Amino acid sequence: MATMLEVTDVTAETCCTPLVREPLTAAEADQLATTMKALADPTRLRLLSIVAASLDAEACVCDLIEPVGLSQPTVSHHLKVLTTAGFLTRSKRGTWAYFKLVPGALDRVSQLLVAS
Amino acid sequence: MATMLEVTDVTAETCCTPLVREPLTAAEADQLATTMKALADPTRLRLLSIVAASLDAEACVCDLIEPVGLSQPTVSHHLKVLTTAGFLTRSKRGTWAYFKLVPGALDRVSQLLVAS
Repeated sequence: MATMLEVTDVTAETCCTPLVREPLTAAEADQLATTMKALADPTRLRLLSIVAASLDAEACVCDLIEPVGLSQPTVSHHLKVLTTAGFLTRSKRGTWAYFKLVPGALDRVSQLLVAS
Repeated sequence: MATMLEVTDVTAETCCTPLVREPLTAAEADQLATTMKALADPTRLRLLSIVAASLDAEACVCDLIEPVGLSQPTVSHHLKVLTTAGFLTRSKRGTWAYFKLVPGALDRVSQLLVAS
């Protein structure tokens, strides 16, 4: 599944026509489904919402482990999926990695689900 | 996976706080992830977009099979997942089942992804 997710980037301007305006092409549907898969996991949704609600929409991985109650490797895996899908960016500062919400990424997905 | 999806109803008013406003609770994240799983499939996205773009946002299953190029049982399965998740309603008229977009269902998901 990780491999599939690597082809997605919700920030790509080519994706997509809003879902309800006209039938999606097969290629658009593939791309949007891959993006949705990145969001279709409760841990990833919680991580994304914690980062989004943090100061400057950025959080240290060290502050993301306890709230979701999973191991660091598992949390890092989910953060990588969200980063690959274009929802987060990662930067290393000192010992820790920090994850920041990509401005507009969730809005773009949101807009694909409505008519206008 | 079909069993998991049966607990979802995106029309339920209890779900959810917008993702970016404050951290989702575990229960909210579970519910939203289940909804997202219904959308995280290219065939279901194409079916949903064909129904949404049809006259009165309604389509006969007989008109949904050819566009996606899959068997009727497979198409029916995907339509059932979308119906269970609260995106479509199903009505039988004569020989065929008709599927209609639930007004506001996609909008509610869309709104959960943005701040306001």
